[in-house]
Amino acid sequence: MNNKIIAISREFGSGGRTVGKLLAEKLGIPCYDHDIIQKIAEESGLCEEFIAERGEYATHGNWFANAFADRDYYGHSLQDDIWFAQRKIIKELAEKGPCVIVGRCADYILKDNPECLKVFIRADIPCRAKRIVEQYGESDIAPERRLRDKDKRRGAFYQFYTDRKWGDIKNYDIVLSMSALGIEKCAEILADIYNK
Amino acid sequence: MNNKIIAISREFGSGGRTVGKLLAEKLGIPCYDHDIIQKIAEESGLCEEFIAERGEYATHGNWFANAFADRDYYGHSLQDDIWFAQRKIIKELAEKGPCVIVGRCADYILKDNPECLKVFIRADIPCRAKRIVEQYGESDIAPERRLRDKDKRRGAFYQFYTDRKWGDIKNYDIVLSMSALGIEKCAEILADIYNK
Repeated sequence: MNNKIIAISREFGSGGRTVGKLLAEKLGIPCYDHDIIQKIAEESGLCEEFIAERGEYATHGNWFANAFADRDYYGHSLQDDIWFAQRKIIKELAEKGPCVIVGRCADYILKDNPECLKVFIRADIPCRAKRIVEQYGESDIAPERRLRDKDKRRGAFYQFYTDRKWGDIKNYDIVLSMSALGIEKCAEILADIYNK
Repeated sequence: MNNKIIAISREFGSGGRTVGKLLAEKLGIPCYDHDIIQKIAEESGLCEEFIAERGEYATHGNWFANAFADRDYYGHSLQDDIWFAQRKIIKELAEKGPCVIVGRCADYILKDNPECLKVFIRADIPCRAKRIVEQYGESDIAPERRLRDKDKRRGAFYQFYTDRKWGDIKNYDIVLSMSALGIEKCAEILADIYNK
């Protein structure tokens, strides 16, 4: 396994995005995260905020309710368009050369690519709750509830498009707890696997 | 986190036991695996084979059926005795000093020990199927079915005594796929975390 691509899935607030950036810096390869959203925006004409939300989160925290949401007479939704655009862009990026890809179901999209290391970054609830308040500020909604909502909608999105359970141990080559290991150590472990 | 103890949970046939032994060798600390069974045998007078089976596997692949199995008039079972003996011994070993403990729900038993790194070793089905045939020989039952049965009964045992789902990403600090990384690399990653 050459692990030329590293696909990082992550829980909201787990620091997975920061791990991805730090890892890419260590390896001297690009980290694609917001770039994917920008590319979809360019191709589709949809606004970036809409894509960021609908390319990873279901409108409902239940894949079944989501399956019927926002569809036109022909059963088609903008979310489907974003999914197909995202899938195409991720496959193209993986063809282009070594890189880190954060989120956006890249672990599933590249599941048959033997050169892709599939990573999941998680963290305990108190650690994530603290991080989201620091990063995104306070809100009327308790941080634990914000996390639960995000996780549910991310899981529902993932299940709808991939027919797999989000965060299932079977889908990843390595799962790291940021709350136990820290961001720097997570990036170090992954850089070490990549380099050997 | 000093990670003085490493608790390794593993799927049947994933090589988790071999990872544990290799890791302990690298670190120059003891690896407890069969020793725990021997200690329970000494204390209880039960035979080792019975303890090995009943200290990790439910009699049924369903925790509910297991909950009512083999109980006497007072609702007590030999499996309960083994569980409590095993719990006591694992806590004592963790008090004694740095070590690797393989299996036997040590991840749960030591869940509140901040110096315990909780590890899960998994592997893809084809890799595990090949390994169990190499290690335990052929049988009339297909290796995939043997794996499924072992996983189900190990999961049911774990759920009954811990009230948690076996293999749930939330219970571990690090999950490694042996089929993606290899035994040597898994041991190396863990030794590196332990040493830093």
